[in-house]
Amino acid sequence: MARDVAIIGIGCTPFGEFWDKSFRDIFVEAGVAAIEDANVQGEAIDELFVGNMSAGRFVEQEHVASLIADYAGLASLHIPSTRVEAACASGGLALRMGVLAIASGHADIVAVAGVEKMTDVSVSAATDMLTAAADREWEGFAGATFPGLYAMIARRHIHEYGTTSEQLASVAVKNHHNATMNPNAQYRNEISVEAVLGSTMIADPLHLLDCSPITDGAAALVLAPADTARKYTDTPIRILASAQASDTLSLHDRADITTLDATVAAASRAHEMAKTTPEDIDFVEVHDCFTIAEICAIEDLGFFEKGTGGKVTEEGVTAIDGDLPVNPSGGLKGCGHPVGATGIKQAVEIAMQLRGDSGKRQVAGEIGMTHNVGGSGGTAVVHIFSR
Amino acid sequence: MARDVAIIGIGCTPFGEFWDKSFRDIFVEAGVAAIEDANVQGEAIDELFVGNMSAGRFVEQEHVASLIADYAGLASLHIPSTRVEAACASGGLALRMGVLAIASGHADIVAVAGVEKMTDVSVSAATDMLTAAADREWEGFAGATFPGLYAMIARRHIHEYGTTSEQLASVAVKNHHNATMNPNAQYRNEISVEAVLGSTMIADPLHLLDCSPITDGAAALVLAPADTARKYTDTPIRILASAQASDTLSLHDRADITTLDATVAAASRAHEMAKTTPEDIDFVEVHDCFTIAEICAIEDLGFFEKGTGGKVTEEGVTAIDGDLPVNPSGGLKGCGHPVGATGIKQAVEIAMQLRGDSGKRQVAGEIGMTHNVGGSGGTAVVHIFSR
Repeated sequence: MARDVAIIGIGCTPFGEFWDKSFRDIFVEAGVAAIEDANVQGEAIDELFVGNMSAGRFVEQEHVASLIADYAGLASLHIPSTRVEAACASGGLALRMGVLAIASGHADIVAVAGVEKMTDVSVSAATDMLTAAADREWEGFAGATFPGLYAMIARRHIHEYGTTSEQLASVAVKNHHNATMNPNAQYRNEISVEAVLGSTMIADPLHLLDCSPITDGAAALVLAPADTARKYTDTPIRILASAQASDTLSLHDRADITTLDATVAAASRAHEMAKTTPEDIDFVEVHDCFTIAEICAIEDLGFFEKGTGGKVTEEGVTAIDGDLPVNPSGGLKGCGHPVGATGIKQAVEIAMQLRGDSGKRQVAGEIGMTHNVGGSGGTAVVHIFSR
Repeated sequence: MARDVAIIGIGCTPFGEFWDKSFRDIFVEAGVAAIEDANVQGEAIDELFVGNMSAGRFVEQEHVASLIADYAGLASLHIPSTRVEAACASGGLALRMGVLAIASGHADIVAVAGVEKMTDVSVSAATDMLTAAADREWEGFAGATFPGLYAMIARRHIHEYGTTSEQLASVAVKNHHNATMNPNAQYRNEISVEAVLGSTMIADPLHLLDCSPITDGAAALVLAPADTARKYTDTPIRILASAQASDTLSLHDRADITTLDATVAAASRAHEMAKTTPEDIDFVEVHDCFTIAEICAIEDLGFFEKGTGGKVTEEGVTAIDGDLPVNPSGGLKGCGHPVGATGIKQAVEIAMQLRGDSGKRQVAGEIGMTHNVGGSGGTAVVHIFSR
């Protein structure tokens, strides 16, 4: 990496169902918060990256990078503004592009944001729009939806490793608990294993409460070269690694659907960059779009042996007071999942934790990780951060 | 710039209406051509960037970066693959991201591609999908389409500078002429000023033949650090500058709609990077989505005084044998405009010209430029190239 990069500002909207706010309202809210937190003027910003999956379909607006520069009041500066997209990993990509822009020397101060406005269409329309993150010709047209695809992964995990529905449910119970301590979370209520198992079956074995919801929200970061970051803040958060990987878009082309090879590859590259191992990571935000996804993630990231993710979750190892807190924010399940925003919101959470600003959900540690997935693993992005 | 970058491979599909080919067929065709032209194996590629405006709406497929890595046979390498989007400037953005990735030191060999499959929907549906590149709330919902927006620009240019319909038509006549010498062009037929003026009025003063068409196509480049490019090819094309700028998304927010400030800003930054002036540019591919757009472009890029673009075009200054050949490929008007592919196809043309491989449409010169616009100027990207 030519230049190291640090986070100097963070901003995040509440996540939820906001019928009184537009797409442009929510990204301005997050962006202004991040810029104010960074103590910079708009004129200091050299470049903008925006992660967004599908504003083209959710709000019939493409070209959102120009819209965002415009509504952030930066149009007269004519800064480069770029939308990046890899479905639900769009936010993670935006962060990585910001890192590349600074590392390249083409930019110094970069704002990166993620945004999605999903609740202005019907749930069935949203489900179809999200299916565009899978292979439309070989999965979508055959009737598969995301709950269906992750249900196949769960079925196979159960078959191979004896994972139980109770273990799946324990992921949701943990993340709802963490979300009760996060004022920005969509769901701030405790749930029980019994409640998950008693909720509507969506795609066997996944119940309603095994699934992350449809959500509006935005999050933003301001980045700077690490060697000048202390000019702006006393608590810069260093980005030790920024790694991204791809895989087949379709599940059926993979040797083993219980492992997301893109996650394995991205994590391996990230540890190489940061000169770390999984043992060095003190806490992690993973992509729990479904409960099974968190179980696969904590295995594929190398924290736990394959097949044991359900067991360790049930035992409390990944609880907020456990050995490895996973999703202290509440994750996608508790916070909600505005798909383009999620990858940035994960980084906001790690930055808050490393600053010691997480209040009731504060965890201890020096090194945090984020893990953001597109589709059923066609893309994965892993970042490692430290004070 | 930390490291200079060069083009070592180029590939482009024919542009046209291909009902017998799918989205995935056409990007594979362009990508394989570029990789073969670069004389590299797929395993050599470190990263992939894809410019695409609206596969989510045109073919109901988001997450196309993973799809493209997959169908290019690169899934098992798990390389990072990123889609970038700024409407019709998406291809130019993909090229710039490739430059940033190499300059940053995160990647050595990078493939960048642009693709759009537009003809699988009705023309009225496509027109609406393209309107998503304008401001949906303030322009699209009020009934504006792109021909309407550019017609307003043309009206104002006529009012301010006395530009004539014949001068507008002369842009289309020139670009059709150049396209007759380009085997990949969608329209390889000569047209006359009378034919343009006699064609259906779309949005006064723009006739049908003032408008670029709806097109399927893909184009790709392979990039390498400039200092190692000669390992792969005897004719590397150096990227002297890669600059991008944004502006207000809506026309009504601009002081003067006859000038695209994003073009002015991007060109100014590009010349600063390349240490050039407009006089140093020997030929240029500009974004002629409508005839008026080429007239504004050659003025805003600093080649001709404001208001004289129509006159110099009519006089033949920008003809293929003129002082400054503009759009020797045939431009968007003659070649067709698969929106995400256009920015990459422009660079393919400049590379062919600088290699001396352009056959009947070969022009002379050492330094070429590309100019790619998103929407009505919310984004502009300018690149400068030399042998």
